Amino acid sequence: MFIRNCWYVAAWAHEIPESGLFHRTVLGEPLLLYRLSSGETVALEDRCCHRLAPLSAGRREGDCVRCGYHGLKFAPDGACVEAPGVDRIPIKARVRTYPVEVRNRWVFVWMGDPALADASQLPDNFSCSHPEWHYKPGYLHYDTPYMLICDNLLDFSHLSYVHENTLGGSTRIAQSRPEVERVPRGIRVTRHVPDVPPSAYWRSFHTFEGHVDRWFIYDFLLPGTLLMDSGGRPAGQPEGDMTGAVRLHSCQTLTPETENTTHYFFQQAYHAPQAMAETTETIFKGLIAAFEEDRSIITAQYRNMLLNPDAPMLPMAMDAALVQFRRLVDSELAREQAARATYPVAATA
Amino acid sequence: MFIRNCWYVAAWAHEIPESGLFHRTVLGEPLLLYRLSSGETVALEDRCCHRLAPLSAGRREGDCVRCGYHGLKFAPDGACVEAPGVDRIPIKARVRTYPVEVRNRWVFVWMGDPALADASQLPDNFSCSHPEWHYKPGYLHYDTPYMLICDNLLDFSHLSYVHENTLGGSTRIAQSRPEVERVPRGIRVTRHVPDVPPSAYWRSFHTFEGHVDRWFIYDFLLPGTLLMDSGGRPAGQPEGDMTGAVRLHSCQTLTPETENTTHYFFQQAYHAPQAMAETTETIFKGLIAAFEEDRSIITAQYRNMLLNPDAPMLPMAMDAALVQFRRLVDSELAREQAARATYPVAATA
Amino acid sequence: MFIRNCWYVAAWAHEIPESGLFHRTVLGEPLLLYRLSSGETVALEDRCCHRLAPLSAGRREGDCVRCGYHGLKFAPDGACVEAPGVDRIPIKARVRTYPVEVRNRWVFVWMGDPALADASQLPDNFSCSHPEWHYKPGYLHYDTPYMLICDNLLDFSHLSYVHENTLGGSTRIAQSRPEVERVPRGIRVTRHVPDVPPSAYWRSFHTFEGHVDRWFIYDFLLPGTLLMDSGGRPAGQPEGDMTGAVRLHSCQTLTPETENTTHYFFQQAYHAPQAMAETTETIFKGLIAAFEEDRSIITAQYRNMLLNPDAPMLPMAMDAALVQFRRLVDSELAREQAARATYPVAATA
Repeated sequence: MFIRNCWYVAAWAHEIPESGLFHRTVLGEPLLLYRLSSGETVALEDRCCHRLAPLSAGRREGDCVRCGYHGLKFAPDGACVEAPGVDRIPIKARVRTYPVEVRNRWVFVWMGDPALADASQLPDNFSCSHPEWHYKPGYLHYDTPYMLICDNLLDFSHLSYVHENTLGGSTRIAQSRPEVERVPRGIRVTRHVPDVPPSAYWRSFHTFEGHVDRWFIYDFLLPGTLLMDSGGRPAGQPEGDMTGAVRLHSCQTLTPETENTTHYFFQQAYHAPQAMAETTETIFKGLIAAFEEDRSIITAQYRNMLLNPDAPMLPMAMDAALVQFRRLVDSELAREQAARATYPVAATA
Repeated sequence: MFIRNCWYVAAWAHEIPESGLFHRTVLGEPLLLYRLSSGETVALEDRCCHRLAPLSAGRREGDCVRCGYHGLKFAPDGACVEAPGVDRIPIKARVRTYPVEVRNRWVFVWMGDPALADASQLPDNFSCSHPEWHYKPGYLHYDTPYMLICDNLLDFSHLSYVHENTLGGSTRIAQSRPEVERVPRGIRVTRHVPDVPPSAYWRSFHTFEGHVDRWFIYDFLLPGTLLMDSGGRPAGQPEGDMTGAVRLHSCQTLTPETENTTHYFFQQAYHAPQAMAETTETIFKGLIAAFEEDRSIITAQYRNMLLNPDAPMLPMAMDAALVQFRRLVDSELAREQAARATYPVAATA
Repeated sequence: MFIRNCWYVAAWAHEIPESGLFHRTVLGEPLLLYRLSSGETVALEDRCCHRLAPLSAGRREGDCVRCGYHGLKFAPDGACVEAPGVDRIPIKARVRTYPVEVRNRWVFVWMGDPALADASQLPDNFSCSHPEWHYKPGYLHYDTPYMLICDNLLDFSHLSYVHENTLGGSTRIAQSRPEVERVPRGIRVTRHVPDVPPSAYWRSFHTFEGHVDRWFIYDFLLPGTLLMDSGGRPAGQPEGDMTGAVRLHSCQTLTPETENTTHYFFQQAYHAPQAMAETTETIFKGLIAAFEEDRSIITAQYRNMLLNPDAPMLPMAMDAALVQFRRLVDSELAREQAARATYPVAATA
């Protein structure tokens, strides 16, 4: 069960071809994404209403898409506008459409009641598209439920252990106690770690004289988006003074593909007047290497959970943020379930 | 659940070795097929009654087969005739046998009550063994239920889209309306498509001057056999005049391997005084390429069905034949279920 | 469901590294095995009590192990002794430990109530560590339930058929009738097969003049261990006279990995003042080849069982030992289930 009335990232904008059809499964539903001649991106149910073949196996015809099985043709509003050999097209011949918003290179789809689609809920992923923030876009596929990856991102004590030789580098990250606050639709986590060695990741693209004061300040928002300001300045240097500091802004988001698999879209951007190709590549490669460390431990954790589904977890102090976030998800799910008595989600188009 | 009191093709005759043992799973049951010294083909349950090992992992001893695990020996009538170290062979020591008919190179097995096995129900696959009809035999394995492939074969509107560049070539196939009739144990579909370009498939082995009048006339019979006369003659030429025409006869049959996997045996034969090796090969290769197009779209359709098992199909005009055939299957299943109160199927041998 | 209050072999001793962490799943439970600085081997639940990550993905710190996810540190007694960022470690922060006995190079773990761990139940696998018995250790993984492999080892009539060209060589093995007796915690099987050709396996490392009198005398003990004296002496030669004879001692043991997969540890040792490298290798290779014959037929048998889970087996004379052993397992399971009302197995550590 997933929260439905919210935005999920279905793709990086560059993944949707200029002309042509793009498939992605989101919340267990097959989606077809494509661009109209106007440039607008649309999302349709990727399943012909006739015999359920994926429309993405068909072809574009102007702004329409034709099913590759028996040739039904659908307009961008989901209506079947042609059915070979059929005199009168049934009114029920249509596929569902999903509200789409493309914001800062992320393609968001609204998986719930279209009437409730609310652009004000879009997260502020500004560094994904900003003249002074630079990055190479990342994507990883997980064979685990998305919630386990949310847990991971909500507790950075794992940096000291999972990422000892990459993003972390000091056990003092785990020993530090972050501040955890509620923000609208999410949790804010603020963690300061003074006087520690810079991470190997930072040292791969920046030169340091000695220890640094590190900070991580991020919002983790429903349904699963992290927006983070993080960095390190020479230890003891006043907060306002960024001389010799590293500062990064990261946007990361998790989209359930199915109950047990997940899409992970992410970047980590550095601030500079202009992109520097080598730095961009070094940061990207370092990030991928570190995120594969996460995927490895989370996948192993999930294997243990599959082996013994009843094994209980033991909540501890470092779980404060993830426990709060799980509560937020649960209350949102309960709220939707209550509302579902009122409007039928799946029947809309 | 499958219709049981009917003939299913278990193999092409040439698949059963001269001496040796051949395994195939049919309707979820493991079958052992082999030839007696008389040339007769027999089908036994491929599962020793003792510890359930497949007899096909054992060996031939004359007309008997010996289990490769503990050495029980079975006669062609399914009776255990030797059990090493056992003084008195229990009367229950036997495996089930299945009635077999080999007709025109197809090996049919009767999966239901042997007492009801009825050779008059065998379909007329004459072109599989006829001095003036020539072909190379085909087989494909599907990871989908057999009914989805029946659907496909019962609606040739898909030729315009799935086979646009192979068997089809004109959207007018889909636009044409076939005649659909009931015949004994099946459905007859008759489709005429006048004045269309010849298909790429035909052009690979035949030269045409211009457009053709195409016809497809086929019976689709329980449990899943297609027998088809199809072809094209120069557009406008009288029906009786076959000058410059292409004419093919096709026999195709679907046998459920399990609930979700299927065996597909097929050929498409051309008529000539003698086989021409190159033509035979060209027709075979073209057919395989086209049938892989079917398998691709049907497999994609089935993936969508697995993702959302409750997604409904929307019947349309082109589904007339397949809807009738599904009704036929359902009524046959219901009839068998009612009869099952009277005789026990699985206990017979 | 498995018998829990007994010893299962989790590994050959050499598999547990000098320093470092070793994982193996036993009875569906993830185990971490490692050696303390004292040399003692310990077994812990390989699943952190916090978020269920496998501890084997972490690292050794002296005699402790630190989880690689959030850094919890566990002592060899299973207690969490450090949790980064946590002021007061909860008393429930611990992982289960399993009693371990290393005996003759086999690492045994006790999967039930630790209070009942009883070293007197360890089987006498003496030839695994004896100056005059020589072998190379073997391991195979099975994708079948362990009970099917017990069945195989309890009925050597299969040697005539499965191992016709390896361990067997005469149908008279299957025709012979073994003596079957109850022994403490198991079954003793004694089979004499006079005047048969020596097996191809023996001939690969020993020269024979003519026929041999073969013997197999073995105990098969709960939960699944075979201890066997077997061999062949020149046909007709008195029992006490070992001139020209082959004599082997074999220790084999089956450990369920999960309900449907199994670990198989085994050796077959020959008696000599000193090991002879070539003979050791020949015997090992011959044994592996033969045991792959078993794995092949048992895996095929299991496939048939999965295809039709309700197909009944038909007990016959050669099943005497395996029927008795299955009864022994069932009565042990019933006894444990009755006792479970009294003590909670999973809660102990």
